[in-house]
Parts: sequence; structure tokens; C-alpha cells
Amino acid sequence: MHRSVLTSPYLQHLIDFERHLLNQQTEIEGWFRDQWQQHRPPFYGSVDLRNAAYKISPVDMNLFPSGFNNLNPEFMPSEVIAAQSAMEHACAKANSVLIIPENHTRNTFYLQNVLALSQILSQAGFAVRIGSINPEITEPTTVQTANGDDLLLEPLRRQGNRVGLDDGSTPCVVLLNNDLSGGIPEILKNIEQNILPPLNAGWSTRRKTQHFAYFDQVVHLFSEQFQIDPWRINPYFTACGGLNFQERTGEEQLADAVSDLLAKIRTQYAQHDIQETPFVIVKADAGTYGMGIMTVKSPDEIRGLNRKNRNKMAKVKENLEVTEVIVQEGVYTCETIENAVAEPVVYMMDRYVLGGFYRVHQGRGADENLNASGMQFIPLSGEIPMSPEEVMLQYNANRCYEQWEDSSLPKLSANPNCACNRFYIYGVIARLSLLAASLELENIQVA
Amino acid sequence: MHRSVLTSPYLQHLIDFERHLLNQQTEIEGWFRDQWQQHRPPFYGSVDLRNAAYKISPVDMNLFPSGFNNLNPEFMPSEVIAAQSAMEHACAKANSVLIIPENHTRNTFYLQNVLALSQILSQAGFAVRIGSINPEITEPTTVQTANGDDLLLEPLRRQGNRVGLDDGSTPCVVLLNNDLSGGIPEILKNIEQNILPPLNAGWSTRRKTQHFAYFDQVVHLFSEQFQIDPWRINPYFTACGGLNFQERTGEEQLADAVSDLLAKIRTQYAQHDIQETPFVIVKADAGTYGMGIMTVKSPDEIRGLNRKNRNKMAKVKENLEVTEVIVQEGVYTCETIENAVAEPVVYMMDRYVLGGFYRVHQGRGADENLNASGMQFIPLSGEIPMSPEEVMLQYNANRCYEQWEDSSLPKLSANPNCACNRFYIYGVIARLSLLAASLELENIQVA
Repeated sequence: MHRSVLTSPYLQHLIDFERHLLNQQTEIEGWFRDQWQQHRPPFYGSVDLRNAAYKISPVDMNLFPSGFNNLNPEFMPSEVIAAQSAMEHACAKANSVLIIPENHTRNTFYLQNVLALSQILSQAGFAVRIGSINPEITEPTTVQTANGDDLLLEPLRRQGNRVGLDDGSTPCVVLLNNDLSGGIPEILKNIEQNILPPLNAGWSTRRKTQHFAYFDQVVHLFSEQFQIDPWRINPYFTACGGLNFQERTGEEQLADAVSDLLAKIRTQYAQHDIQETPFVIVKADAGTYGMGIMTVKSPDEIRGLNRKNRNKMAKVKENLEVTEVIVQEGVYTCETIENAVAEPVVYMMDRYVLGGFYRVHQGRGADENLNASGMQFIPLSGEIPMSPEEVMLQYNANRCYEQWEDSSLPKLSANPNCACNRFYIYGVIARLSLLAASLELENIQVA
Repeated sequence: MHRSVLTSPYLQHLIDFERHLLNQQTEIEGWFRDQWQQHRPPFYGSVDLRNAAYKISPVDMNLFPSGFNNLNPEFMPSEVIAAQSAMEHACAKANSVLIIPENHTRNTFYLQNVLALSQILSQAGFAVRIGSINPEITEPTTVQTANGDDLLLEPLRRQGNRVGLDDGSTPCVVLLNNDLSGGIPEILKNIEQNILPPLNAGWSTRRKTQHFAYFDQVVHLFSEQFQIDPWRINPYFTACGGLNFQERTGEEQLADAVSDLLAKIRTQYAQHDIQETPFVIVKADAGTYGMGIMTVKSPDEIRGLNRKNRNKMAKVKENLEVTEVIVQEGVYTCETIENAVAEPVVYMMDRYVLGGFYRVHQGRGADENLNASGMQFIPLSGEIPMSPEEVMLQYNANRCYEQWEDSSLPKLSANPNCACNRFYIYGVIARLSLLAASLELENIQVA
């Protein structure tokens, strides 16, 4: 089995933080219940986290998660119950779901994700079909997933104010698994069906800086309520626009933004006696798929950007020009699996944490984006925490963390172990990001 | 690992039946969703099933399930999500739960069940305490469960129109895990808190014959909708009252009832070409715990009842006199685990199937009640079915059943196997019984 190892000189920070939250677990869950009564959770979402021991933060929040195939199959029963509850909240009368996937029909791992998602919904008791907006799909087409399973893609058709398939069926729920990076397709505009998540959740509308502005609000509430230092879970960020990487337009403003942010991080590091080198991540403000991302430790790196790196930053998915970036506090990840750097990704459906996986990259460092060619996925299990009393029994200084190194990834069992706590904390931070996404969706209109 | 083996000359009946239902799985799930919009599911429940291959029936429906400790620990994540959803439906504002357990504080296995139930709710994010109505519990008392865990029982106190504990706390939700066989305690009458399940779910109000009368209605609807022979899943029954086993009052009427029911079963057996000997089960119409239960194959057995058997039938739990019985069609169980007769018990919370276990008894026959001293519990896993398409691929005559004999109890995985189908069917039948219980609770008033 794969081992997840957490190595850091700052373990005591993490232990104190976890203990503090675990002691308030019931109150935290009550707080989330209260929030979900005020704000409707998105249908689903995934959050990339980084754990630097002295800080655990979300660094990206995806409203069109595409790694359902990487989740532990043992969690299918909870995924099914979460899907039933999510569908009940979304459209109580729905019996069928039309999934609209991404257009990349040659990425067989992505197709495996679509199959996994459709299996969850189908086992939850919904008739599921796949309606593709890929112009190459002009008739029902069976494609092969990475594991060699068949997946039927059918062309999406507009029928008045509804979308459906060639046989005339127009399911009540349209589930987007397409992040709309290329803009909102005409065929989806002004349809009367329930679109989940709504169209304004696509990257043609969303901005990472908006998400993290709402995350600021959520963290403010949460840290007041549960008495934590907000910086503990919240990465600094700033927006920088008007850029043209090819033509070096806006380079000075970006270098200044990097410089300012590094100074803020340096101040926090000094206050918390952290000896690491501050860094920031510069990435496209809209978009995903790990494109257009850069680790920066000095503003001079921005000023001296060579052609190769300028090209790398200039475009993202669907060949879109990058003119706006988020400059985000970089968070080291101190977890490794078999010596490769690892970061947790947490999957949620409605208000429920489904589980997640580690994104692992052999060729990257603890200060780098791991969402890149060569990454691997190790399912994690056991997002359920032990009770605070059980935790206290086991929490004697660092003993807990030594156990992590000695044991395989934990199985969920009646005898939970420390890794369960870690996953619980991950689930809390990820849900704070999910709550920020709820606020985003309430407030951001389709352009 | 323990193997569950299904042996029967009537396997083809079962295969045809399962195939028929699995082909309509999406519609069945839609039907249940629709029913649950009309009828609120009980907070929780467990159903004892018998699988005779040519017939699968519920034989008992318990609204105060007491075997949570026997469920597969792997299903904790789905139990937690189901509990969150159940609590949301029951009382959206609740942050804490007061469990009222049975009074038998010396049954350490039962105490293990109370602990398991409280762990599910606590991991779902509710503060859980145990309020005992046992008169021996006069102050907070720590008792030991079968596994040696500590469980704190606190005396339940009345405070105006609420019940609570010595420190004055009066949680919003009062969760009964006490079947009220001894009547509704004064302390619980007319309280303003949410009592789950409601007081009329107790055995002081419920009658098995009422449950099965509602089950008749549910089966009628379901079999019309999905084109099955209602007898396939519905055991004949009749009520017989005015009895006094000690004094042999009503013996003739009971013998006649048995005789009539055996005749009806005989007719069905002839129609379906079933070579087994019909039998009936006579059991107390109110009550549980496997007391006051008798297998009868001829009315003469009733007429010739010896003193020992009359005594056995005369009293149930809390030493209550039995004057009313249900005479119920007996259903053979054709499953065994390591040569011991086994019957499935399915656990549900709100509308969700949590899983279940096999009740196994070395010393009992396929025509006997297994809920008796000496029984054992083997957790089952994998209530999630494969898709109908996957099923069809694997369903070639009896091959499927041979596999059951060759493999250990299935793990839930991305590659589901046949046992998952069987569990899916068990989950359907169990939910029909749960739906009947919903109708019962809507219609039965506390006396």
C-alpha cells in the first residue's frame, strides 16, 4: 500500500491546530448546517489543498470536478446517498439526468471520470445519458474509457427552450461537467431545464480572485467563531490585470504585486517564526487544468521572464489569452507518498464530503503546482473523524505523526486512527471553500 | 472470510425475479422517491427477511433497531451522510440528540449498539447523550459495552414540557431506541420536543398484523406498477385474538386459523409447482426479541400444545401476557453461512439503505425463527447494485449462483458482483416494509 508521510519542523503547529478544531467538531458541524440553510451548496465541487503544517489552505476550487474515477471505490455507498440528497435538493421530481461533458473525447481518463460520475447517479436511481456539445459528435458514438469500458456520447440537441437528445428526450436536470472555458455555448442559453451547476459557475464568468475574496469573508466568520488565526487557513492574494505576457505589457505592475505579497508573507513568517522562503503562485485568474501557472520567489523573476515562460503563461485551455492573473501566496506541501510530493484534493457533493485523493508528482517540488503532466492519483479513504475524546487519548506530542510514517493509508474502521483527523480537517477547509463558491454563485451574474 | 451460500431447487425463480426487478431499477428508485414525497420515512428501521428463492419476504419490521454494532464498519461514511439527511428532515435546527435506550443495562451487546448509534450521530456532527429511563439509573453511570468501551448513561429528567438531563440540557431531538413494550412512560407523555420515531411506533401501540395490512397495500401498488406476482414478496397472515395459552382459551380458533392459512399456502405452492411443506409462524402480535414464536406445520400441533410450549408462547418481553397473535405464512430461508442457517436483516435510516447483516444460527432449521439465543451476526457489505446492463452480461442461467459459493462475501467495489444484486433486491423489499411502516405511523394513534 501507498504511504502518506508528513514531514515538517512545524508539526507542533499542526497538532495544536487540529486539536483546537477537533475539540469543537460538533460546533463546527452545527455551524456548517446553519450556513447551508442560508446558502445553497453547489451540486458538486473539488478543492485542491496544500498542507504546510503551519498553514493549510485551499489553492483552487473547481465546480466541475473531473476526477470521480480517482475516488476510492469503497466510498460508492456514500456517494450514492450524497447524490440522492443532492438531487433531492436540486430537483425533487427528477428521474433522469443529462450530463454535458468536456469536449476532449481523446482523454480516456477524463472519459473514465464521466463514466464514474454517471455510475454514481445511475446507482442513485437516475436514468443517465451523456449529451455532448463537441461538434465532432454528430451521431450517437461509443468511445472507450481508459479502463476499456464503453461510454455512449450522444449529440446534444436544442428543442425549443429545452436541450435533449435525438430521440426527443429532454431530462429535467442538465448536469454540467464542462467548465465552459470557451464561453457559454448558444445551445445552453435560456433553457428552462435545471442546469447544475448554473452557467455562471463556468470559467467564462468565474474569477479565482472573486472566489478567494468570498473565501476571505467565509474565513473571517469561521475564525471569529472558532478562534483561529485567519492566516492559518487563508492564502494572501491580489489581482493583476491588463497583462500581455507576449508583449511584456504590465510586467512592472505584476512584479510590484509579487513584491508586495512576498512582503506580507515575510511578515507573517517572521511573526510565526517560520524559516521557509516565502513564494507566490502566479496563475490565470480564469481557467483551470494547471495551465498558465508559475512559482515566483522574487519580483526579479517576473522582470526577467524568458520567452519560454512568457509563452507558458500567455495561454490557457481553449487557447485563451491570459490578461488577468491572481498572485496568490504559495503554500508548501509537506506531504509525500513514496518520496514524491503530494497534495490532497477533496471531493464534495451538495454539503457532503465524499472523499478525495492525493495528487502526486515525482518530478515536482514542495513549492510547485502539481497539476501537470506526469501527476498520479492515490485515492484516500476515511474522511470520518474520531470523536474529540478519542483524539485526545492518542494525541501525545508527535507520536501520532510517527504512526503515519509507519502505517499504510488508513482504512476507515471502527477504530479510527490519526489520518482520519487529518482528513477531517481537510474536509473542513474544503467545505469553507465550497461555502465561498456558494456565495460566488449567489452573487456572480452571467456576463 | 465467511461465505454466504444460496442453495435451492428453485434458483431459476429467483434469477427471473431479480432480472425482472433489476431491469426496472431506475423506475423502482423513481417510484420510491415519489412515495417518500408523499410519506415521510421513519427515522430508522430494520427488516428481517427470508429468502426461499421462489419467495423473498419481510417477516418482521423493527422501528427501534438494536444491531448498529453489527453493521460493517466500512459503511460508516454512508451512515453518517444518511444520519445528516435524516436529521435535516426531522429537525433542521437540531444540534444535539438525546438517545433513550432500552432498560437492559446488563446486555453488553445492546450497549455496544447504543454506542455505535451514538457514534454515527456524533460523527454526523451532533452532540449525543444517553438519557436512561431505567429506574436503577439514578445518577450519571458509566457502563461497559461488550467490547469494553465506556458508555455514560444519565437519568432522564422531566423539566416542564421537556425531558433532559441533570445539568438542565434538553436537546431538541429525542431519539427512541426503546420499543416501549412496557407502555409509554409518563415522563415521555406530552413533551414538546421531537420524539423520533414517534411514541405510536412503540410496541404498546403497534401490531404486526397492522404492519402487514399496510404492507399488503404497498405490495399491491408495487406489484401493479412493476408487474410482479404479489405473493412473490408478501407473506399471507391472519390475526387471532382472545387467547390465553396457559388456560388453553381460544385454542380451537387458533388451530382453525392455522388450518386456513396452510390451505392458502398449499394452493400457492401447487400453482407454482413448489414441493416444500407449507408452514406458518405463530407469534405475539405486539412485541419483539424473538419471544413467543412457534413454527407450525399442522393445526394439530396447536391443539396438542404441551405445557412447556404453552408457557413459551404465553409471555413476551417485560413479562407481558400474549392474548393476540399473528399467524403468518412461514418462509424458508435458503441461505447458509458455513452450514448454519442464515437470514438477512436490512438496516435503513430515513429513505436510505445502510447495509445489514446475516442473522445466523447453528442450531436452527430453515423453517425456524433464528432470533434466538445462540444466534450470531455476520455483517454484509455491498448493498449497491450493478447496472441492469452489467447484470445481463453476467446473468447466464445459474452461473451467477455458483460464483456465490466460490467467493467470499463481496466487497463493494467498482466491479460489483452478483451478491450486490441480491443485496439490492433485499434493499427493495426492506424499503417496501419501511414504506408500510410510514403508513402505519401516519394512521395509528397512541391509545
